[in-house]
Amino acid sequence: MLLQTTDDTTFGPALAAMLDEVQKCFSAELLSDTDCVNDLVAHVERFRGKMLRPTLVIVSAMAAAQSEDLGDLREPVITAAAVCEMVHMATLVHDDVLDDAQVRRRGATINQLRGNEAAVMLGDYLISHAYHLCSSLGRADISRAVAHATNTVCEGELLQLSNRHNLELSEAVYFEIIRRKTAALCGLCCELPIRLHHPGAEVNGDQSLARALFSFGEKLGIAFQIVDDILDLSGDEETVGKSVARDLAKGKLTLPVIRHIEQANADERRIVGDLITQAADPQLDEQDASELAKAVAQRVTESGAMDYARQQARELVGQAVEEVLSTVGPCAARDLMELMAAAVIDRRF
Amino acid sequence: MLLQTTDDTTFGPALAAMLDEVQKCFSAELLSDTDCVNDLVAHVERFRGKMLRPTLVIVSAMAAAQSEDLGDLREPVITAAAVCEMVHMATLVHDDVLDDAQVRRRGATINQLRGNEAAVMLGDYLISHAYHLCSSLGRADISRAVAHATNTVCEGELLQLSNRHNLELSEAVYFEIIRRKTAALCGLCCELPIRLHHPGAEVNGDQSLARALFSFGEKLGIAFQIVDDILDLSGDEETVGKSVARDLAKGKLTLPVIRHIEQANADERRIVGDLITQAADPQLDEQDASELAKAVAQRVTESGAMDYARQQARELVGQAVEEVLSTVGPCAARDLMELMAAAVIDRRF
Repeated sequence: MLLQTTDDTTFGPALAAMLDEVQKCFSAELLSDTDCVNDLVAHVERFRGKMLRPTLVIVSAMAAAQSEDLGDLREPVITAAAVCEMVHMATLVHDDVLDDAQVRRRGATINQLRGNEAAVMLGDYLISHAYHLCSSLGRADISRAVAHATNTVCEGELLQLSNRHNLELSEAVYFEIIRRKTAALCGLCCELPIRLHHPGAEVNGDQSLARALFSFGEKLGIAFQIVDDILDLSGDEETVGKSVARDLAKGKLTLPVIRHIEQANADERRIVGDLITQAADPQLDEQDASELAKAVAQRVTESGAMDYARQQARELVGQAVEEVLSTVGPCAARDLMELMAAAVIDRRF
Repeated sequence: MLLQTTDDTTFGPALAAMLDEVQKCFSAELLSDTDCVNDLVAHVERFRGKMLRPTLVIVSAMAAAQSEDLGDLREPVITAAAVCEMVHMATLVHDDVLDDAQVRRRGATINQLRGNEAAVMLGDYLISHAYHLCSSLGRADISRAVAHATNTVCEGELLQLSNRHNLELSEAVYFEIIRRKTAALCGLCCELPIRLHHPGAEVNGDQSLARALFSFGEKLGIAFQIVDDILDLSGDEETVGKSVARDLAKGKLTLPVIRHIEQANADERRIVGDLITQAADPQLDEQDASELAKAVAQRVTESGAMDYARQQARELVGQAVEEVLSTVGPCAARDLMELMAAAVIDRRF
């Protein structure tokens, strides 16, 4: 969706042209001398969607440069954008393993199993190439920043995993999970151009700009994940474009549900707790699971917890925009950052 | 086992002391501010075994320096050794996912499933920290060499995966698989110290030494994997210390079996082909699977194919040793390299 908006002339052909080069860089890096690897990589193209992360890298670079012409930074920014997209794709592919596992719970087949095994290895191939491509920048400090972000992403995933089926998950821990698993990479995307601009490990006079851009990306990432979680609970598959109600099926409590439980009286807690436990039963067929999720979503909506979650996302986006407005001078890229922020809230898919 | 031998005074306390520091570096890198991550990482300690890869890094460094005293290279060599071990551990953890998948085929439980999901993420955490630690060397060219090796490892795994249940797998493709999935990292281990010694990306006058050390590691790695595959087919679980006959269960044809099929007449091909197909049936119980594997192993042994595979490993080790003898001057480290090479062939576990 964000990729589509870049076709709009408002956002400038410079961004669209660079995103095109990111895709070429991405594909060139993954090319193998082994046919079976190339066949598998072709599947990854399916996952290509919003190109949110490369867009963040490029737009932040343009905002920092106060120009769409990045000069010498153009090539490294394209490379960095491809690296961030590759890291993201790797996490998607490994998330798929967890999702396949879900699907398998409702009817294991050997084919699904082989799919899982290939997905584990394909994700490893993507992450390995992300670091390989990153090191082509010749900057160990950039490699370290990227690896630090991926460390954090893994911690977020593991923290989430250890809190599955935890009906007492707090908002604080939920925010910590999504800050790590989603927002750390978005923050990195926005901060990388400043790092690239400064050949040493220090960003010198640009600390406050680097911090503001990181914070913009991080807050946007948190808001993005909250909206993702709302859509999983309340959206329908056709609109959202992917399976919904998967979080409850996996025992993952998200902000609207956490808020609802926090605010509920003892009776309601018991009722919604029972529904959530039933929805996570691996023996459920798809229709029963979907109906249970709908029942939970209805209660969460009626209590106002869904609106609360949406409001949290809205506030974060507001803060993100404020930070950019106060540190980045007016330019087309800054306008685009504002539009991207608004799109995170308004999206229905 | 190799770790134990380092306690032997023949191999020098310098190596043992450095391996100890590798372990400390390994643990320090993986420490998280998140308890659930640390709990999971603690499981990785279970996998610690031969420390073959760190030993290769350290001994190659000592051989290149013609001294056990590595001077300024000591710290970077320890870091590089920990990086290589971390990469190896990540592959073991993800291999476990495939193995868990196997076990699950004979009786899926939610617990096993959660184990798989955690293993995917834990493997990602390990590989991410391997690159993070690697970048602390401040050498983008070293990061690139490590990532190039992991690219190759992933390709090997994917090539192997795409050849599951392929009864016509050739020796050439088998060797290509294990060269990539196992030997590429062993080659890197031996070559890294030369790269570390040369601050630029070029190894200058040491090209032939770098090549010889890489080749030593690569050949040792191939031989190691052949022996691993022989043990899987012919060893018993108690001696080998891990599940055996897993390759056939996973539809993975290894050198002894490939050779046997190549040399067999049409009747024998049909018989052994049937046995292999049956052994890969996911519905089999453990005892039936083990008996089928024994039947295959017996035929492979009687045809001389098992000896053929062992002989291939022996020849590779011979070539590896020759290469070292012709490029590395006599020293304790070179002696150790010879002993390590012999141990690869003689090992029963």
